[in-house]
Amino acid sequence: MVEARMRSVTNGHHPDLIAALDHLLSSGGKRVRPAVALLTGEMLGAEPEKLITLSAAIELLHTATLVHDDLIDGAYLRRGIPTLNSQWTPAATVLTGDYIFACAAQLAADTGSVEVMQKFAETLAIIVNGEIKQMFSSPAKDSRLDYMERINAKTASMFVLATTAAAMLSPNSEQSFNAASRYGYGIGMAFQIIDDVLDFTGKQDTIGKPVASDLRQGLITLPTIYYLEMHPDDPDLRVLLSGVNFNNDRIARVIQSIQESNAIQASVDEAKEFIRQALSALNDLPATPERQALEELAIYIIDRHR
Amino acid sequence: MVEARMRSVTNGHHPDLIAALDHLLSSGGKRVRPAVALLTGEMLGAEPEKLITLSAAIELLHTATLVHDDLIDGAYLRRGIPTLNSQWTPAATVLTGDYIFACAAQLAADTGSVEVMQKFAETLAIIVNGEIKQMFSSPAKDSRLDYMERINAKTASMFVLATTAAAMLSPNSEQSFNAASRYGYGIGMAFQIIDDVLDFTGKQDTIGKPVASDLRQGLITLPTIYYLEMHPDDPDLRVLLSGVNFNNDRIARVIQSIQESNAIQASVDEAKEFIRQALSALNDLPATPERQALEELAIYIIDRHR
Repeated sequence: MVEARMRSVTNGHHPDLIAALDHLLSSGGKRVRPAVALLTGEMLGAEPEKLITLSAAIELLHTATLVHDDLIDGAYLRRGIPTLNSQWTPAATVLTGDYIFACAAQLAADTGSVEVMQKFAETLAIIVNGEIKQMFSSPAKDSRLDYMERINAKTASMFVLATTAAAMLSPNSEQSFNAASRYGYGIGMAFQIIDDVLDFTGKQDTIGKPVASDLRQGLITLPTIYYLEMHPDDPDLRVLLSGVNFNNDRIARVIQSIQESNAIQASVDEAKEFIRQALSALNDLPATPERQALEELAIYIIDRHR
Repeated sequence: MVEARMRSVTNGHHPDLIAALDHLLSSGGKRVRPAVALLTGEMLGAEPEKLITLSAAIELLHTATLVHDDLIDGAYLRRGIPTLNSQWTPAATVLTGDYIFACAAQLAADTGSVEVMQKFAETLAIIVNGEIKQMFSSPAKDSRLDYMERINAKTASMFVLATTAAAMLSPNSEQSFNAASRYGYGIGMAFQIIDDVLDFTGKQDTIGKPVASDLRQGLITLPTIYYLEMHPDDPDLRVLLSGVNFNNDRIARVIQSIQESNAIQASVDEAKEFIRQALSALNDLPATPERQALEELAIYIIDRHR
């Protein structure tokens, strides 16, 4: 029903736009944000009809940010299939992203909640502000704190949107809001950390893009940060971080060093700690079958790295 | 107060983003959309505080679409000053536009009206859909009907948003909605037609960009459409429209022919007809000093071309 709702807003629009949206929505994705919104809202007694609209709005907002991100990064593959910008002009890609923002906003307004709309707009501002910050900061300055701030803006904020907006649509939302927010934050942070671990440990076929593509683009994520803390003098990584020499052999050596180091396990442990916080937040919420599913979902997020 | 409200949403965000927004807002513009929203709302008895928020939201939505438009068109000047994309990277420009969308959505949500939010999202979808349509259609196929559809999406839709959202925030909004919508449509269509006339008749200093910049970019507007109807066999224009030869002498000849033809007056007459419809819609609205000001604003739109 969420899939159908996402496609329901395009009535009467240009066929090429509808085709682009269709391409994006058909390219898979786990739809984990809609699952989180649906389960949270059902657990808290929200109206299913509104939760479907909310979940569709959240997934479209996520999709719109991916379209502009891939354009900005010049990424050619996502989930193993060609990105929109690899096939369209930059102009058409910018506009398609804007169009999907508009569709997401329409669905968010359709929930009938001004509070939800405010949270939506605030989340988009947080995400974009985080990207601008990343763009204007030198990668070498990346500390663990910078990283946490960055993945909070990039990923956790959208999970917090999913859980808190679902709570807003529920009766007694004041009582559940705080715990819902903590759950969303915990799984969101863990989700991104595990994504960044998989960037090092995954196979290209599974993650749908080249191994360590972040590091290749000069983006420092948690495994690299831990590795640096453990091996502050690694000459290859030092040269890499200075940004002067993007030699392929050197990158390959650094990637292998990180893969074989304890930095991977340290990162997974950090993700586990966020999951522990998320599970503890669940204890303050109603013990329903949906809560059980949210528990399993939190554990699945960690299990993805195996 | 609208100016201050537009800058009030950026608290805590990245200094470069705030500087970019400041640059955009300081570059002038007539703020005609806020004026229309304020006057319409005041005429209909809406709360001033909400109207200020609404007006700020509309001007920011307009600003965000201009940022992405200028990037797409590769425009280097707007209102006589450098565009954002002439100074920033495309990536930063895309993100800044997204950020301003988010600010606009936050303010729109702050009006507290779900109806207003829906109209906002719908308007953004109309604008983007219109741009995509224009991008994927051959300019030579431009008829008067295509043109009207295009400027409705591009410009009139935002004026309709200004008047109808103001009506939505007012008591008895059902009674005033239709007339408010017709007024917004009439002045919006006339506004864009006069802009397109000024593109031919204005001086570069006044319009802040090269004369006939639309035609130079292959974009056919109403004066050219009328000229074509009057001189279907003009060899220079035919060659130009076939898109093969963008010779500078030929463009200069075509521009001069259009400037000296009756196409200019025919376009102004068409704008006058839209203003007549807008003034007639005002008759169905309360006879207050604000209505008088809206009348004068409608007449000013036409007088701009002198």
